[in-house]
Amino acid sequence: MERDLIAKIQRLAGVRTKDSSVLVNIGDDCAVIAPSPDRYLIITTDTLVESIHFDLDYFDPWHLGRKTAAINLSDAGAMGGNPRWAFLNLAVRPGMTDRFWDNFSKGLLSRLSEYRVSLVGGDTVTAPDRLSFSLTLIGEVEKGKWLSRSHAQLDDLIYCSGNLGEAAAGLKLLRKYKEKRRPFEGRKGTHAISRTAIKRLVGKHLDPEPRVTLGQALAESGLVKTAIDISDGIATDIAHVCKSSKIGAEVWAKEMPISRALKEAYKILGISPLNLALTGGEDFELLWTVSKRNESEVRKIATEVLGYRPFRIGKIVQGDGVLLKTSQGAKEITYQGYEHLT
Amino acid sequence: MERDLIAKIQRLAGVRTKDSSVLVNIGDDCAVIAPSPDRYLIITTDTLVESIHFDLDYFDPWHLGRKTAAINLSDAGAMGGNPRWAFLNLAVRPGMTDRFWDNFSKGLLSRLSEYRVSLVGGDTVTAPDRLSFSLTLIGEVEKGKWLSRSHAQLDDLIYCSGNLGEAAAGLKLLRKYKEKRRPFEGRKGTHAISRTAIKRLVGKHLDPEPRVTLGQALAESGLVKTAIDISDGIATDIAHVCKSSKIGAEVWAKEMPISRALKEAYKILGISPLNLALTGGEDFELLWTVSKRNESEVRKIATEVLGYRPFRIGKIVQGDGVLLKTSQGAKEITYQGYEHLT
Repeated sequence: MERDLIAKIQRLAGVRTKDSSVLVNIGDDCAVIAPSPDRYLIITTDTLVESIHFDLDYFDPWHLGRKTAAINLSDAGAMGGNPRWAFLNLAVRPGMTDRFWDNFSKGLLSRLSEYRVSLVGGDTVTAPDRLSFSLTLIGEVEKGKWLSRSHAQLDDLIYCSGNLGEAAAGLKLLRKYKEKRRPFEGRKGTHAISRTAIKRLVGKHLDPEPRVTLGQALAESGLVKTAIDISDGIATDIAHVCKSSKIGAEVWAKEMPISRALKEAYKILGISPLNLALTGGEDFELLWTVSKRNESEVRKIATEVLGYRPFRIGKIVQGDGVLLKTSQGAKEITYQGYEHLT
Repeated sequence: MERDLIAKIQRLAGVRTKDSSVLVNIGDDCAVIAPSPDRYLIITTDTLVESIHFDLDYFDPWHLGRKTAAINLSDAGAMGGNPRWAFLNLAVRPGMTDRFWDNFSKGLLSRLSEYRVSLVGGDTVTAPDRLSFSLTLIGEVEKGKWLSRSHAQLDDLIYCSGNLGEAAAGLKLLRKYKEKRRPFEGRKGTHAISRTAIKRLVGKHLDPEPRVTLGQALAESGLVKTAIDISDGIATDIAHVCKSSKIGAEVWAKEMPISRALKEAYKILGISPLNLALTGGEDFELLWTVSKRNESEVRKIATEVLGYRPFRIGKIVQGDGVLLKTSQGAKEITYQGYEHLT
């Protein structure tokens, strides 16, 4: 099989592979690419394992391909970089059909092509019993203009790009009902939540939007230095920022961006929307910090990219962890998952 | 676990991580690296899955780490490139000890540091039942000076850098006896083959030598344009060159570099040395083609790097496949594995 599947996926890419920076493509010992002069490279890689990170009972191959791409694109966005070239490692178990790979490939390429990323290499191997993927993304960033986790300053405000907790709620709904392909339609026990809400939450898990354009705009402005994508939930992701920046943070319960759909899901899931918003992973929203001085300018930039105002959810304070401020007081939530907060 | 293990491996690297080209290291959303000006990038990635590509019954973690690195280094060498930065994806199953990871890391880093490659990123995830790794290597190559599979010309001579078939014989010996750690010592049935021969063959499987320096020297000379590393056996690897270069090749049975150890192994394995030399994978020797005009100069360069004369094993001819020439005549071996040749 060795590389055949990736060559096939690349053929599906058709016109998208006509990238003049790609000098040697799939089919040699290495890919050869010409980076832009005067740029630094950004590199990210993520692995997804069947039954740990996804379940084919509820993940159709097209969405799985799109999500594989989105996870890495989100990391590139969190650095403010321009993703350009992708490499796919596939470990393929028996029982996968050509149709599965066609749809997976189309999904993967549909997300990559939104950002003009070329798939230029990879490796295909056999696995005895479980499918897994690694995608590696190489991109570029202007010298001195990348975002990192380590530049948060005292009194910076913390912003995020969208509603939190939705992807986690979507996953829980999917697991709860294990519906295939068209979740929840015509099922008993679904009357407590609208189809619109289900579609929104499940959609956020299956097809998250990587905030690449927003990350680039923030980096380009020169007014933002610190960002992270929300992959593990903000109780953990803000803790990463605190650790890297050697400072503390507080988040404000009443400012959490919680959608009506998430509130509806409470009736089925029994987990509080605030809890899911603080600890639910895989929203892939962008979180950044900004000084008071630059706040309004940066909010304007973000609003233009997003089409709505981003959410101000907390600020950087003295200390070394993450505090949740509620009307009842303050509570440490550093690195906590929802198990600790229920 | 998320990234912790890779951070730990990197800490073990100690001084080796002090690489001024690495601007953002493990622990952010992406690594940031500064490539050299006026170079192209080469990228290769390979995946190894437990029980498909290795078996912990006979692979100790130190050698497994070294081989994970060597496979990718070999690809970089086959492009004539300079490997510089590595990214490791680990899918870790239950039951792995700290000691395993310490030894794996030390092995991996020992091979990478021979070529001054820095481990700068990766991903660690949980796998339910099987260990797997992907290593991705980024390197650099002078513009217009890389080796590829696609420039073999009619009448070029085909050379290779070392004995063939040894790694395949080593693997078969390991599988045959499933000895742990110290194969074959004091076992019945081993009297037919010397300990020196066993050590040599098994060593070639566990710890192959990537021909990075040789590939660089050949590319640098400007006299060689076509190379491949022998990972699948020459019946397949020369077929790759033929396909990419749109031409045929013949290999000469009497010129095959067959070691005395491989001949000895026949007594135990019952597979002819010629057969193993033509079809045995994972030797990771370098194969290249050179015009008659440049032959002696290139042989001199290779001899200097290797410390012995490389082996002239065939030539490029009209056609589209690989022919084996023996005293009995010619026989097509394109893409054949040893199953077809016994």
